[in-house]
Amino acid sequence: MAEPLKKNFLFTVIGSGNVAWHLSQALVQSGHSFHEVYSRNEKSGKELSHQFSGNFHTSLDFSQSPAELFILAVPDLAIPIIASSLILPSTALLLSVSGSFPLKILLGFSKRAAVFYPLQTFSKESVLEYSNIPFLIEAGDPETEDVVYRLAKSISETVYQIDSTTRKKIHLAAVFASNFTNYMLSVSHDLLKKEQVDFDILKPLVFETLKKAFIIGPSKSQTGPAIRGDHETWQNHLQLLDKKEDLKNIYNLISHQINISMKNS
Amino acid sequence: MAEPLKKNFLFTVIGSGNVAWHLSQALVQSGHSFHEVYSRNEKSGKELSHQFSGNFHTSLDFSQSPAELFILAVPDLAIPIIASSLILPSTALLLSVSGSFPLKILLGFSKRAAVFYPLQTFSKESVLEYSNIPFLIEAGDPETEDVVYRLAKSISETVYQIDSTTRKKIHLAAVFASNFTNYMLSVSHDLLKKEQVDFDILKPLVFETLKKAFIIGPSKSQTGPAIRGDHETWQNHLQLLDKKEDLKNIYNLISHQINISMKNS
Repeated sequence: MAEPLKKNFLFTVIGSGNVAWHLSQALVQSGHSFHEVYSRNEKSGKELSHQFSGNFHTSLDFSQSPAELFILAVPDLAIPIIASSLILPSTALLLSVSGSFPLKILLGFSKRAAVFYPLQTFSKESVLEYSNIPFLIEAGDPETEDVVYRLAKSISETVYQIDSTTRKKIHLAAVFASNFTNYMLSVSHDLLKKEQVDFDILKPLVFETLKKAFIIGPSKSQTGPAIRGDHETWQNHLQLLDKKEDLKNIYNLISHQINISMKNS
Repeated sequence: MAEPLKKNFLFTVIGSGNVAWHLSQALVQSGHSFHEVYSRNEKSGKELSHQFSGNFHTSLDFSQSPAELFILAVPDLAIPIIASSLILPSTALLLSVSGSFPLKILLGFSKRAAVFYPLQTFSKESVLEYSNIPFLIEAGDPETEDVVYRLAKSISETVYQIDSTTRKKIHLAAVFASNFTNYMLSVSHDLLKKEQVDFDILKPLVFETLKKAFIIGPSKSQTGPAIRGDHETWQNHLQLLDKKEDLKNIYNLISHQINISMKNS
């Protein structure tokens, strides 16, 4: 039998970036208690500890820490080196917030480990509605999974139990849906800037495009020269991109894919 | 001196697609009167005329029409052939709704012609707030421009006087911001579908990404493996895309551009 979940956890955050900052806030707002933060960046680590009235911990030796949850909020590349240096209390639960890092490797660093991946983009400037964020969780045993599930549920309405392979693929989908859409916006932004046109002119168009994609599906809602097979506009646009060879390649490649998708549908 | 603008116009729509439908609705809601529609598609043309209690006109001879505005809401490729066959009343004002079609060529078809381009994506399923839509207008003479400006203002709060060259570039920016972002979503959608994961899981992420891009600017808000220089995740993602060579090309090309932009900033 699983122990009943203690309602409030005392937690430690390792890392002091945007994810660390927002998850600390989400957990505190859900009734959990911030205990301490470790960060190689002293400035942002101290800011975080002040923000939540906790301690700034200067080593990775947490053997004397009363915290029960240790949240590893560092870039994927830093996980192995930091996790292998961590000294945790014996009953501690180590949580990774990564979309790609496999649970199996994490379990090599701590017997009690789980994935606690918020499918969201974080920046200090943004005010987020934490209850909307989908949490993708995974643990090595049912008891830990139950604890992590209920922890995630204490923050958010949408919690999914997802294995590492599927999580990786969802992360890939998120790269297209978030990072690459954002890149397309940055191209637009730069094109408009050259014409001294404010980027906000595109706001109603962009939000309507996305709203539609989630209502009728992005394939059905595709519009524009490529899906219409309007090669004249296509060629005109390539001319406007002039000597920007990379942008022309991107324009051609995506337009070609959109055009093919029409023929296959 | 320009004549004072008549508050309500009697208008004719040429074309019966999504743009024709929404602009008719926007004009009617703003107090103008739908008179008739011409469409090569009899079914949708008749539907449109019934919707707004007007006539379905079967020829391009409008010499006897009492309408004052003729809205050319057909694909760019069809503009020359349709516009050259149009017979309009002598005082009629011909409006093009195209982002790319030059005013200069339009003026070859009608002495009184103007561009009336709504920077928005239209589909019958969507309910739109017309007052938010930016209208990009252009006319060959100040008097016509004044009429079209006030017509656009009767629908929307945001109206810009933009020349054909700049409008073309804004249209190109819109292709990146709308058509290409939508394509990125369709790739995500397909990746998730294979894992039997609902596309809605990405909704909070996507909307937050865009919100941020319009608040702090898309370059500053760029996140993901490419901007972090996380080549391990980058390579993992290429492996997950397996034999989808086109998607791998797109992934590489965009990630490369994002990565460069970091180094240049």
